[in-house]
Amino acid sequence: MKKQEQENVAPRPISRSDVAAYFGKPESGFRDRLFVIIFEAETRAGRRFDFSLIAAILLSVVVVMLDSVSGINYRYGGILNALEWFFTVAFTIEYIARLWCVKHPLRYARSFFGIVDLLAILPTYAAFFIPELHALVDLRLLRLLRMFRLLKLTAYVEEYSVLGSAIMASRRKILIFLSVVAIVVILNGTLLYVIEGGPHSPFSSIPTSVYFAITAVTTVGFGDITPQTDLGRAITSVTMLVGWSILAVPTGIITSEMTAQRFAMKRPPNTRTCPVCLTTGLEENARFCRNCGAKLPLFARD
Amino acid sequence: MKKQEQENVAPRPISRSDVAAYFGKPESGFRDRLFVIIFEAETRAGRRFDFSLIAAILLSVVVVMLDSVSGINYRYGGILNALEWFFTVAFTIEYIARLWCVKHPLRYARSFFGIVDLLAILPTYAAFFIPELHALVDLRLLRLLRMFRLLKLTAYVEEYSVLGSAIMASRRKILIFLSVVAIVVILNGTLLYVIEGGPHSPFSSIPTSVYFAITAVTTVGFGDITPQTDLGRAITSVTMLVGWSILAVPTGIITSEMTAQRFAMKRPPNTRTCPVCLTTGLEENARFCRNCGAKLPLFARD
Amino acid sequence: MKKQEQENVAPRPISRSDVAAYFGKPESGFRDRLFVIIFEAETRAGRRFDFSLIAAILLSVVVVMLDSVSGINYRYGGILNALEWFFTVAFTIEYIARLWCVKHPLRYARSFFGIVDLLAILPTYAAFFIPELHALVDLRLLRLLRMFRLLKLTAYVEEYSVLGSAIMASRRKILIFLSVVAIVVILNGTLLYVIEGGPHSPFSSIPTSVYFAITAVTTVGFGDITPQTDLGRAITSVTMLVGWSILAVPTGIITSEMTAQRFAMKRPPNTRTCPVCLTTGLEENARFCRNCGAKLPLFARD
Amino acid sequence: MKKQEQENVAPRPISRSDVAAYFGKPESGFRDRLFVIIFEAETRAGRRFDFSLIAAILLSVVVVMLDSVSGINYRYGGILNALEWFFTVAFTIEYIARLWCVKHPLRYARSFFGIVDLLAILPTYAAFFIPELHALVDLRLLRLLRMFRLLKLTAYVEEYSVLGSAIMASRRKILIFLSVVAIVVILNGTLLYVIEGGPHSPFSSIPTSVYFAITAVTTVGFGDITPQTDLGRAITSVTMLVGWSILAVPTGIITSEMTAQRFAMKRPPNTRTCPVCLTTGLEENARFCRNCGAKLPLFARD
Repeated sequence: MKKQEQENVAPRPISRSDVAAYFGKPESGFRDRLFVIIFEAETRAGRRFDFSLIAAILLSVVVVMLDSVSGINYRYGGILNALEWFFTVAFTIEYIARLWCVKHPLRYARSFFGIVDLLAILPTYAAFFIPELHALVDLRLLRLLRMFRLLKLTAYVEEYSVLGSAIMASRRKILIFLSVVAIVVILNGTLLYVIEGGPHSPFSSIPTSVYFAITAVTTVGFGDITPQTDLGRAITSVTMLVGWSILAVPTGIITSEMTAQRFAMKRPPNTRTCPVCLTTGLEENARFCRNCGAKLPLFARD
Repeated sequence: MKKQEQENVAPRPISRSDVAAYFGKPESGFRDRLFVIIFEAETRAGRRFDFSLIAAILLSVVVVMLDSVSGINYRYGGILNALEWFFTVAFTIEYIARLWCVKHPLRYARSFFGIVDLLAILPTYAAFFIPELHALVDLRLLRLLRMFRLLKLTAYVEEYSVLGSAIMASRRKILIFLSVVAIVVILNGTLLYVIEGGPHSPFSSIPTSVYFAITAVTTVGFGDITPQTDLGRAITSVTMLVGWSILAVPTGIITSEMTAQRFAMKRPPNTRTCPVCLTTGLEENARFCRNCGAKLPLFARD
Repeated sequence: MKKQEQENVAPRPISRSDVAAYFGKPESGFRDRLFVIIFEAETRAGRRFDFSLIAAILLSVVVVMLDSVSGINYRYGGILNALEWFFTVAFTIEYIARLWCVKHPLRYARSFFGIVDLLAILPTYAAFFIPELHALVDLRLLRLLRMFRLLKLTAYVEEYSVLGSAIMASRRKILIFLSVVAIVVILNGTLLYVIEGGPHSPFSSIPTSVYFAITAVTTVGFGDITPQTDLGRAITSVTMLVGWSILAVPTGIITSEMTAQRFAMKRPPNTRTCPVCLTTGLEENARFCRNCGAKLPLFARD
Repeated sequence: MKKQEQENVAPRPISRSDVAAYFGKPESGFRDRLFVIIFEAETRAGRRFDFSLIAAILLSVVVVMLDSVSGINYRYGGILNALEWFFTVAFTIEYIARLWCVKHPLRYARSFFGIVDLLAILPTYAAFFIPELHALVDLRLLRLLRMFRLLKLTAYVEEYSVLGSAIMASRRKILIFLSVVAIVVILNGTLLYVIEGGPHSPFSSIPTSVYFAITAVTTVGFGDITPQTDLGRAITSVTMLVGWSILAVPTGIITSEMTAQRFAMKRPPNTRTCPVCLTTGLEENARFCRNCGAKLPLFARD
């Protein structure tokens, strides 16, 4: 059967025992208990820790967002600043605890979530020197990707892998699609630059014209840059119609892939064969061959 | 068979007898006749009542909408005001009648349609004190959801349940999708705030920038806020392309779900049964029972 | 078989003989020859007539469009005006010829294409009295729908009927979808009117606010009206995300319908049965039963 | 079997040997070695040549784009100009080499890629006389279509042909769809011109109004032209809803086509053959040949 290739495309869910094996779980003592709380979601303490972590991340992002609104900043700036330092210190302690309780701290520090954890605390410290970086504290949101890891352990495995493998299986088609879109958009932008460009035109350079072509193809259409000449409008009309129509292509790719995977998933290949008359495709729970009536050997499937 | 789970997903249509059982239908007399007219759509009087109710709701919404247009308000303000009071009084009487003719008025008052009925009359009275609330009379539109209940009883059951169950069955995938979109949009907005933000920039706060990121991802693109720097435009270009492409994902989810449900529905149930052991669902071309090995009688299908 | 219902949904192509039967084809003479040229596309003369008609319609529409451009009007106004009168007179003669050569002129005058033919010549005459109506000459475009009738006779029948029947079969689902969108849009517009409305706000009335809500839900986003308050922007953000996501619903409806019809079309119900062993589903071209080897009776299908 | 038609729709990949046969590969010597390097991608030298060509094209496009940005032009104009001349000369040499090493230079010059190669070098020379044409150097991007030919030889064949044949198989449906959109858009634009048009209105001519109608139907909505009257807004609202909804149609066409092709492809060809009359495509569970009635040997599938 050639079906197996397809099934391998689905990303293997990372189980907690992998984490323990990779980062190194300490044998016993306080470090071990901390490891269980911080890294394992199956225990009650670990689950509680994960949920309070998610709540803290969401709260700290809300704090950063509110802090950027000038009216709120003016009134509650002090409290929000204090809150942000509280969260930063808490996340710093958590980061150090994570590094301390695994056997191979460098491995954790270099892993995806290790880097994200660091990015979540750096901006507040960096804002001492470059205040503009302050808002980057929102990179904390990436920590929420943990949430998926958490949820994946319960009920989201199947949904996640169908979506992921549909996109993975179509990646080449999507790449071709995006290459064609890129060529269309650059050529279109250049053409508009030649037609509309001028000293006082908003089509001041090719990159700007390409930016406009992207707003037209994706049907966004901000309207800050628009063609003024009849020829420019005619070309843009074609661009809009093309962009609007070819949206059907990625949708077709993903949808037909998902439909196919769903049907492949629902009907596993049935290869049970009668040893007497060699009829294939016998039902899983059959006890006698439907064609010759021979008694079938019992077998446990999978 | 695992088919049953799927079929349970479809919401059970609420039949009128449930309504009678839940709110309590009076045994006899005028209250009983009123109950039949107001709550039951099967009788001629009930059907006539329902249709005039829908007409009244639509008319009263049109009245409120026209009243908000200053030119029309100036000329016909008096008539429109009178009409609105007429509808409000009529709906108030209807609301009281509904409460009066059921056995358990509190149950009705706390039900979804009970609350909607109250919301439909409150704004006119509330506008005495807070004139701004006047336009909320449009909440009457929610009463039109009754229409679906009415129509559902005749021909819309199947369509409604296919749509509903396709969305229900995909709710986890849709939730994951919306979470990813939320993270993308917040991070993107923050990034644009850092790059484009400034005292005179429209990217005045993170929430505003997130609002802009949403207009870009959803391909709405109002254009009231637009990036001015080259870097901001480059990032926005990526956002637009991402938003435009991933629209394929919810479409793929719903479409493949609907296609699957349609095929599951179309396949007729297999009712071939072994006359000896009564096993059902035997294959069409089976000559012996798969369970007991008994020779099956020949039969012409359809 | 329940398949027949589905097939009946596809609109029956209107054949020329129907036209002759309905409008009445004259027995002989010049009127008959004219009828053949004007109404029948199978003959060489008729086909030539149809193609020159389409060319004339397209040309006359181009003339009207160019005439509306002030620069071109200023220079070539005289020629364009002459051309338009030429086409109008030609279409008037054609219209009279159509009425004259059928047996039941009133039936033709009241048919869809009869009305369209009249609409195609009226605006030029009407522009004598009300010059603004002049541009409505473009209603001539509707005459191009004849083109589909022409093309349908050759190769477009299947494509047309698949598209048409997919939309017809989904009409109730689409109606429900559009009702929900209408309710969402009106309630949303009212809410924004209450929040954003004011003497100097662009949200000047409920209809205007509903217009804005439609631009947001459909992801058009002109940007002539935009929310200025934070609350208004938050509500609009939700509207945009909802509109963007639920676009998946009509796509899902049409796509799953088309996929289903395609599969239903490809596999016609096979009911050929062996008269000896009663095995069903025998292949069309089989001469012997695949199960018992009995010689099958020959039969012409369809 | 009617399956063959479908499979023929997929475009036959152009193999290198076809190129050699069509343009004429020289027998030996330096010209032959050059032909192998320039036209054949299977050898190591040819592959290296193709990749450096792609890199050169991309780099030269980046140079042209940067050159159009006034700030960068001001500072690095000299270097960028020199780089562009370097690439132009290199591509000119390559073009001459291509013409020289094939047996039929005229055939190559008139082929699609021959014209593209010429277009890639002409603008720089033409800019001597008409500086505005300078930016058209970006037509070089079309040379990247070679990339697909290159990639197609390795792994992209299947993806490419599925996409291509899905679009090819639906071309008539897509044509009908685009004709309907064209008619809708022109009639809509004319209607808005009649309603909104005026001396100071942005709806200054029918072509401009059609341009607006296209921005509304495709949900782009630049907002440079917007209706101001209530009637105009009502019509535009309908246009937006129609455009938003009928996007489902091309998506449905492409998706159902791709799903169908995928299923057609997945089903393995049935090669069971009668040993007596050699009829192929016998059903899996057949016990007698459907053509000659011979008893078939039992066989285990897969």
